[in-house]
Amino acid sequence: MSEQSPLDLAEGDPFGPHNLPYGVFTTADEPDRRRLGVRIGSHVLDAGAAAHALGSPYAGLLAQPSLNPLLAAGRTTWRDVRRAITAWLTVPAHRPDMEPLLHPLGAVTMHLPYEVADYVDFYASEHHATNVGRIFRPDGDALTPNWKHLPIGYHGRSGTVVVSGTDVVRPSGQRKTPADASPVFGPSVKLDIEAEVGFLVGTPSRMGSPVALGDFRDHVFGMFLLNDWSARDIQAWEYVPLGPFLGKSFATSVAAWVTPLEALDAARTAPPARDVEPLPYLDDSEAEEPGGFDVRISVAINGQVVAEPPFATMYWTAAQQLAHMTVNGASLRTGDVYGSGTVSGPEVNQRGSLLELTWNGRDAFELPEGKRTFLEDGDEVTMTAWAPGPDGVRVGFGEVTGRIVPAV
Amino acid sequence: MSEQSPLDLAEGDPFGPHNLPYGVFTTADEPDRRRLGVRIGSHVLDAGAAAHALGSPYAGLLAQPSLNPLLAAGRTTWRDVRRAITAWLTVPAHRPDMEPLLHPLGAVTMHLPYEVADYVDFYASEHHATNVGRIFRPDGDALTPNWKHLPIGYHGRSGTVVVSGTDVVRPSGQRKTPADASPVFGPSVKLDIEAEVGFLVGTPSRMGSPVALGDFRDHVFGMFLLNDWSARDIQAWEYVPLGPFLGKSFATSVAAWVTPLEALDAARTAPPARDVEPLPYLDDSEAEEPGGFDVRISVAINGQVVAEPPFATMYWTAAQQLAHMTVNGASLRTGDVYGSGTVSGPEVNQRGSLLELTWNGRDAFELPEGKRTFLEDGDEVTMTAWAPGPDGVRVGFGEVTGRIVPAV
Repeated sequence: MSEQSPLDLAEGDPFGPHNLPYGVFTTADEPDRRRLGVRIGSHVLDAGAAAHALGSPYAGLLAQPSLNPLLAAGRTTWRDVRRAITAWLTVPAHRPDMEPLLHPLGAVTMHLPYEVADYVDFYASEHHATNVGRIFRPDGDALTPNWKHLPIGYHGRSGTVVVSGTDVVRPSGQRKTPADASPVFGPSVKLDIEAEVGFLVGTPSRMGSPVALGDFRDHVFGMFLLNDWSARDIQAWEYVPLGPFLGKSFATSVAAWVTPLEALDAARTAPPARDVEPLPYLDDSEAEEPGGFDVRISVAINGQVVAEPPFATMYWTAAQQLAHMTVNGASLRTGDVYGSGTVSGPEVNQRGSLLELTWNGRDAFELPEGKRTFLEDGDEVTMTAWAPGPDGVRVGFGEVTGRIVPAV
Repeated sequence: MSEQSPLDLAEGDPFGPHNLPYGVFTTADEPDRRRLGVRIGSHVLDAGAAAHALGSPYAGLLAQPSLNPLLAAGRTTWRDVRRAITAWLTVPAHRPDMEPLLHPLGAVTMHLPYEVADYVDFYASEHHATNVGRIFRPDGDALTPNWKHLPIGYHGRSGTVVVSGTDVVRPSGQRKTPADASPVFGPSVKLDIEAEVGFLVGTPSRMGSPVALGDFRDHVFGMFLLNDWSARDIQAWEYVPLGPFLGKSFATSVAAWVTPLEALDAARTAPPARDVEPLPYLDDSEAEEPGGFDVRISVAINGQVVAEPPFATMYWTAAQQLAHMTVNGASLRTGDVYGSGTVSGPEVNQRGSLLELTWNGRDAFELPEGKRTFLEDGDEVTMTAWAPGPDGVRVGFGEVTGRIVPAV
């Protein structure tokens, strides 16, 4: 009997040929040679080597140390390359050529798969924004007056976007509680997570030319999990009037795998009913396809699940965020990344931040290691997710994980 | 009699050998070949060609389409390259080699001289922040409680940083006045400027390692003028609670010329007295050199000077801003840019924004073309500046200019 092929996947494997996320890897014997890979089951296909082996016209785009050239090639190429790779991994005649080019996931190191241009983060979950409003402004309206008229967003720091698995150093900074006469300096004592879905822009746009709601698929290549680490004490003191800065800029972790939009057609879902009519450039009521995505996120600390935020409940969609971000004429670049904002559902166990889960530290929860309100040094946070795929099979997302190491 | 050399400068020329700012240019006959240039008087020296002609070891760093390789080379190299170029332009024996490599400014096209990594903007003028507070919160304290404890900053959009001379399309977006029942959409009716000084980071830093106040010169390569265009109506509606986004992200104009820090030693000046003691990481009272810079800015609309903001009056210095930006462990990358924030002095004619100059549109001013509160289509805004140099000569800054074109 022959050995089992890495391409013989278990039925329903969430990383089957219906998924095919992209990443960048190195192997132990060539630690400096970054290569574009495609995940299949628990292996990585060396995409450039595969293209060469089969004489593919896409060898130039795939034999690269980063996704950016493929991202810049545009939607038609994304589709054609995906079709080609699907054939390489499913047509039995290609197996002898492909099998030597498959590396077990455990034998490779994953890297940030794209060069980040601008990083924008949104605030698009009504449940999250309502919780935050109630915590910080208990006597006022939970949502600010603009919240249902536009997807609130801000720019974050591109240079500290790191790949899943990177340790996160506890940030230091200024904080001041109402009880303090003046601010104190030290390591954050309210280090938090934000469970989000990120979107990766491939096709750029011209400055001065807004991107319409319906052009989302022409510009956005794919999706991935994102953890927008947040130091709540630093943020609370600094953010009035110009928004979050050092409370967020120390690290943002992204998954090593980017799932192409095309793999998520079956996950499309209608966004929640909007109780305020959006302005025309944000009005998706007549859109050709529903703007939501039914992505089920799971957040674990030290292996114990603490929340299951449902992305389908987001008030503002990724297409609306893209249209809003460019309506003033701001251009897109290949490698722009934007985060959905913290994903929180209506239930307590669906909240995507510890701020909400513990009501700003009021309600501790139990881990085997002890009580938690915010993150302790040594804690490891791991987010995973899946979405409905074709024929009832799941589309798996690459995890995003990170461990807190003590402040310097 | 021989023709006069472009190197025979008028006495006191603000772009003499004491200045030597860097830029990137193309010529009409080779419009696609970007080259690094050094400004001398009213000419540009082709720096890469000059290095080749003289067999300089810096030819590799200078024969480049962008400043980034030189920026990444670090402070010792910056000093050595500057010394070398000074000799090329001042030692008479080099004239026959250098003169053919000088292009008149009027015959070249200038480009963005560096690839922008992250762009951060601060809010560091006490006069500006006080004016803005009085305009928007007439019944509250003008300064927010954090203002004198930390230099407030936020991330802007790197992808829309453009070089001086680029037209600026009037942005469209949502705005809502208290009189409006719901927001309206359309071209901004409060398009404004912000006169700022920008700082360019050369040497990167490691994530998790703050950059100390005293290490400013090891990381920052130079300075330039910056106009942070702002749509006040869009900004006012969107910015609570996460800060400015579309009100700023449509365009930020920077000068084509970067003045090396070394050219500005004589412009160093003590910052204003601080009436709140800064935390140790921001305390510059024992600093080796004063943290302020005596840069005199002039703002003109359609050629008429409307304000003369004095950079020496800034409360927070660029070194404090750098220390603050990294104190949480955020890393620096080559090409990071940060803006000082709007420069406003104590006098009415020293205000660096139309918001302040017209008190949010209440007080119009006269131009030959008619009354102005905010910018009209066709208006051209030009900022220039100079600083004291060695022996009483001025150090000129490259202008930053831009013209408003109608919304699409």
